[in-house]
Amino acid sequence: MSLLEEKFLKLGAEYAPGQEVRQNTVEVDIHKKRMLGSSVDFSHGDVDAFEPIPGSLDIFIEGVNSGGKQAYTEYRGSKNIREDAAEKLSIFAGTTINAEQNLIITPGTQGALFLAMGASISRGDKVAIVEPDYFANRKLVEFFDGEVVPVHMDYFDNDNSAGLNLTQLEDAFRAGVRLFLFSNPNNPIGVIYSQEEIYEIAELAQNYGVTVIVDELYSRQIFDGRAYTHLCAQNILNPENIITIMGPSKTESLSGYRLGVAFGSAKIIDRMEKLQAIVSLRDGGYNQAVLKSWFSEPKGWMEKRIAQHQAIRDDLVKKFWNAQGFKVRATEAGSYLFPQFPELTISIYDFVKVLRVQAAVTVTPGTEFGPKFKDSFRINFSQNHQVATDAIDRIIQVVEEYRK
Amino acid sequence: MSLLEEKFLKLGAEYAPGQEVRQNTVEVDIHKKRMLGSSVDFSHGDVDAFEPIPGSLDIFIEGVNSGGKQAYTEYRGSKNIREDAAEKLSIFAGTTINAEQNLIITPGTQGALFLAMGASISRGDKVAIVEPDYFANRKLVEFFDGEVVPVHMDYFDNDNSAGLNLTQLEDAFRAGVRLFLFSNPNNPIGVIYSQEEIYEIAELAQNYGVTVIVDELYSRQIFDGRAYTHLCAQNILNPENIITIMGPSKTESLSGYRLGVAFGSAKIIDRMEKLQAIVSLRDGGYNQAVLKSWFSEPKGWMEKRIAQHQAIRDDLVKKFWNAQGFKVRATEAGSYLFPQFPELTISIYDFVKVLRVQAAVTVTPGTEFGPKFKDSFRINFSQNHQVATDAIDRIIQVVEEYRK
Repeated sequence: MSLLEEKFLKLGAEYAPGQEVRQNTVEVDIHKKRMLGSSVDFSHGDVDAFEPIPGSLDIFIEGVNSGGKQAYTEYRGSKNIREDAAEKLSIFAGTTINAEQNLIITPGTQGALFLAMGASISRGDKVAIVEPDYFANRKLVEFFDGEVVPVHMDYFDNDNSAGLNLTQLEDAFRAGVRLFLFSNPNNPIGVIYSQEEIYEIAELAQNYGVTVIVDELYSRQIFDGRAYTHLCAQNILNPENIITIMGPSKTESLSGYRLGVAFGSAKIIDRMEKLQAIVSLRDGGYNQAVLKSWFSEPKGWMEKRIAQHQAIRDDLVKKFWNAQGFKVRATEAGSYLFPQFPELTISIYDFVKVLRVQAAVTVTPGTEFGPKFKDSFRINFSQNHQVATDAIDRIIQVVEEYRK
Repeated sequence: MSLLEEKFLKLGAEYAPGQEVRQNTVEVDIHKKRMLGSSVDFSHGDVDAFEPIPGSLDIFIEGVNSGGKQAYTEYRGSKNIREDAAEKLSIFAGTTINAEQNLIITPGTQGALFLAMGASISRGDKVAIVEPDYFANRKLVEFFDGEVVPVHMDYFDNDNSAGLNLTQLEDAFRAGVRLFLFSNPNNPIGVIYSQEEIYEIAELAQNYGVTVIVDELYSRQIFDGRAYTHLCAQNILNPENIITIMGPSKTESLSGYRLGVAFGSAKIIDRMEKLQAIVSLRDGGYNQAVLKSWFSEPKGWMEKRIAQHQAIRDDLVKKFWNAQGFKVRATEAGSYLFPQFPELTISIYDFVKVLRVQAAVTVTPGTEFGPKFKDSFRINFSQNHQVATDAIDRIIQVVEEYRK
């Protein structure tokens, strides 16, 4: 097998969220009858149930009407939109963002992640990645010929923290890791790192000269009034060694516009722009305009959205807690749940296919978030409340039917 | 210097089209007075002078209104939009495109280029690149740790062909090159490869087992009724070794929407999708909808657009031909001219800065298209006719003032 074939084998996207239609389900043996109920795609949020920020389309149209200056921006994004975003994000994240030097607009947070990793990883570099964490994190390290050093998160055994194994993290830094990427709130668990964990990460990174990329995609959707600690606001780690990533694709339902930002280290942002120049030139010019609606939502809109999601979480978590053999930690922020299920007679890959065909429910297998999570799946519960609740009953029933 | 620093030094984007506002012009010695005239940015087309396809915004709005199914598509793009594009492009390019296997929608043709190159280059691979050709081609090879093998185009010495040095091309293939990327019509020269050249490229590639990526971005804007030969329509080279790239960013002025497609080899398209999954997930969902307007322009719209550009070309070329010391080959397709200018007392880098500050004219230095083109610059003449013509007078005057 050639180097390239090997690389792309590792990049397999068959089980990635959104790609389920390309799965081969013909060979799956569905020995029970199909269940009744509305089909639900838990692989991502439903923007029909939770619509984009009001007025976002109008801002897009204004962008188109303003013509060439909006169509062709600097590769890092339109100056006045960067200025607007820098001001709002400085307040939100408790840091100082210079729009000229410290911020880039990207095609979604996925775009920001790719550029930040491409700007930071050299062949053979060791990169610490949390397990479980967002599925692309490991794939990015592998694509750039780095080496993944996993750091475990004991999310079931901790109530007041995410449960990151800090001893393992220090061991990884001591063993030569110079880059650490993690999502906070964690994807797929939906837990927030405690203030102590963030301090410790920052101190360790500062001591060992490690650069940290923090994916804060879901940091606006916090439940139960919990505290959230931005790494970039702590003044512990050299700001030139921090990149923070955010975007309006999740809570704000603007995913269809592909908008994201990265802010922090001027040196890394500069490299990210050079890379963006050959990756896709710039985030869609007209799309960039829509970023103006972000952090400018109508009064009360965000609070209502958070309350609605918290209510869905409550119902879903209750169902899993009451079901035999399931284990789940309640979401603290974001729209993800990562339930662990009892041992089945079929593999997790067949299980997700059976769920799709028999129960009309799409979930993402745990193995996308780390090789050992063969007993868990992720759901994004940003869905119609009733439809989501009913679908959980069907998942529990399928598990009952295939239980060992 | 670290490996990564070296890599990003090569990726320098300071002189890349669209980045001119980030140039430091303070140190340039402008010893002549500023000229009067409307400022012109020849680094890209002016979508205010030549507007997007009528109705494209309406199709975008329909896309937004259709909700979640348009926001979240497969990574390779929405199925029905791929089907529509595959049908139209099969006719245009004289080939057979299966929408399921042979086509991917990307964020602009730049996105398609990046994905196609990333899916085809392994560390150390030799890649043949034409000189001059699109500036990102060389940068992409370098970013993926390949080795550029230049193949020269003698564009001044040939009237009935682009002037590609086919002996050099065969030498490159014989020396181990397994990938050849070129743009047709060529960017920055605006010449079309002759039927004989395309046959020869296809035969050489077939004999040596070379994969060919053809960037046909400007292949709809053909002047003087010339013939155009699609490599993919010749049935000489194995179709699994061809990727063709196109998009509606140029002639159709849809650059602000970031739309492109790649079609051809199922194996490479498959890899491109896996790569897109970690680069930016998908081309913006709502944006994809706009692709439906492509090849469905109002009757006569494309013909008129071509005629208008041909008329601008005629006036601009005449001016350069009449100016002392200039040499230029007339554009055969697309909106580029690549004039060669006489020896100056200042470097090409200072020359482009002087042009910006003194004459309010932005051009792209020839060195972006190959290291030896220190005596040429590229202009995109998709501009207001009068404004463009006047700007050429100012360019000629500046050259007069700084002539050796």
